Amino acid sequence: MTVPVYLDCDTGVDDALALGHLLASPRADLVGIGTVHGNTDAAGAAENTLRLLTLAGRSDVPVAVGAASPLVGDFAGGAVAVHGTDGIGGLRGSLPRPACGPVMEDAADMLLRLSHRHPRELQILAVGPLTNLALALQRDPSLVTRVAGVTVMGGAALVPGNATAVAEANIVHDPEAAQITVTASWPLTLVPLDATMQQTLDESRRLRLCASGSAFARACGQMLDTYLDFYERVVLGRRAAALHDPLAAAVMLGEHRTVTAPRVPVEVDCTRGPCRGQTVCDLRSQRRVRGDVEGATVRVVQDTAPGYADLLVEMLDRV
Amino acid sequence: MTVPVYLDCDTGVDDALALGHLLASPRADLVGIGTVHGNTDAAGAAENTLRLLTLAGRSDVPVAVGAASPLVGDFAGGAVAVHGTDGIGGLRGSLPRPACGPVMEDAADMLLRLSHRHPRELQILAVGPLTNLALALQRDPSLVTRVAGVTVMGGAALVPGNATAVAEANIVHDPEAAQITVTASWPLTLVPLDATMQQTLDESRRLRLCASGSAFARACGQMLDTYLDFYERVVLGRRAAALHDPLAAAVMLGEHRTVTAPRVPVEVDCTRGPCRGQTVCDLRSQRRVRGDVEGATVRVVQDTAPGYADLLVEMLDRV
Repeated sequence: MTVPVYLDCDTGVDDALALGHLLASPRADLVGIGTVHGNTDAAGAAENTLRLLTLAGRSDVPVAVGAASPLVGDFAGGAVAVHGTDGIGGLRGSLPRPACGPVMEDAADMLLRLSHRHPRELQILAVGPLTNLALALQRDPSLVTRVAGVTVMGGAALVPGNATAVAEANIVHDPEAAQITVTASWPLTLVPLDATMQQTLDESRRLRLCASGSAFARACGQMLDTYLDFYERVVLGRRAAALHDPLAAAVMLGEHRTVTAPRVPVEVDCTRGPCRGQTVCDLRSQRRVRGDVEGATVRVVQDTAPGYADLLVEMLDRV
Repeated sequence: MTVPVYLDCDTGVDDALALGHLLASPRADLVGIGTVHGNTDAAGAAENTLRLLTLAGRSDVPVAVGAASPLVGDFAGGAVAVHGTDGIGGLRGSLPRPACGPVMEDAADMLLRLSHRHPRELQILAVGPLTNLALALQRDPSLVTRVAGVTVMGGAALVPGNATAVAEANIVHDPEAAQITVTASWPLTLVPLDATMQQTLDESRRLRLCASGSAFARACGQMLDTYLDFYERVVLGRRAAALHDPLAAAVMLGEHRTVTAPRVPVEVDCTRGPCRGQTVCDLRSQRRVRGDVEGATVRVVQDTAPGYADLLVEMLDRV
């Protein structure tokens, strides 16, 4: 049994890892990919994605370019220091040129179309800013009734942010879209930094990827070089990097176990103040009773089982 | 060696405990107390404080009534559910009537006067909304140069708030004053919920207070009955309460050890958005290197040694 998956991404080094996890998983049927501004520009993210799909021999998966800028304001210019100027650690030029380009519809329209083709079965995995999801909800609010689930890598509940003191990059790059997405009445799982910063891939595992029999895994190992440089210098002080986007893929597919993941009220700060882009997760209730808050639709993954890096390396080996 | 201490409070059950800690400490010379809106109204807080001082035989400590409302907006009406209608669990009527009332100056003026009398020696302990401190800074910005240190019970860094999902009561009751206070260039120690929620007093210790030889300690034991009711029902699901204000007193005096307390950039959300009143503590650097951030003036106490409740019970026994 596989589930149809729509991936929304801003490829991105860890987006590439998430793509790899999905391609390797026996549970996922990747039916479409939309790209969005974020780590790099939306068109560049599509090019990266198409090249990675070609490398994996999966040119059959359609890729749609999505929103070039957030609902409010302009594209921030990409996370060049983290992901390199091409978004994938300088590796774009050495990946195979795809036979054809992106499809002609935009990402939000692709998502709406796929929701009709797979009613109540489609799983959405969003690992970039949530502009495409918000646009799709604005174009057709009934989308919420046709989707089986939405999993978002984004936000920070009780840990520091990575873009500001309190905000995570995907959310702060389009807070208004995030607020529309997390307050829509569909079952949403948020995989924030609380969970993803705990799952790191170190240099030894990167070298295992570089020595893999899979060309896709080797490309991941190579592009992780830049990413680990950044994490060592700026984030962790050791040569290892957080597995944000692929962890969200694994959580969505039930391939990596969540430990603490209550459904609680969530909203996004859309002010111009110091908390802009913060995911405000109301976890006060958890002091008294751990568990879901009645009426809440957003599951906040605070912890997952240890050891996801090893699973990811195994998955990428199989692509 | 004692240090001159100005206490700013909204007495309040845990304010009473902080007062007791200060009165019992051989290190503190309590030279003045200002009251402020918060748990109860500023005038009621002064009456509670005067009665508690009388009970302790310390009517010599002057009490000044301070700000009745925050810099922006109105007094919120007090935390009746937490502290009772009189602020001290219904105990006001059974405490001795003070021989005289508050002094004629207001709390901000008292603080300024004390800063001149004890230049570079005065320690400020603020356990309510920070309106009086902000007013004093506005009246005379040179105050920052005459104060040895400021310790504030307030805020929440990486734990949920208690007034909103992200804001603690003292700060959310006057965010504008808090922002003025935490961005002033004086050495400030913030003792937020991160630390205080870890130090709880349970029913067995409350009963020890009720059986104490000290009338002050017995009064504390009695007023804690209401407080523990609230904590059991609403906050913790067990009969124990957080020792917010007295922990800040102990930290200020160096009588209870801090474990993690880096100096980091701090600002207060003063928007009208969902994060209003949040203390935004930029702890991102702590992922890489634990320790102080250069140029930061606010020390954020994230953890203290366990076992403060036992120390507090011993202190109150001595009042």
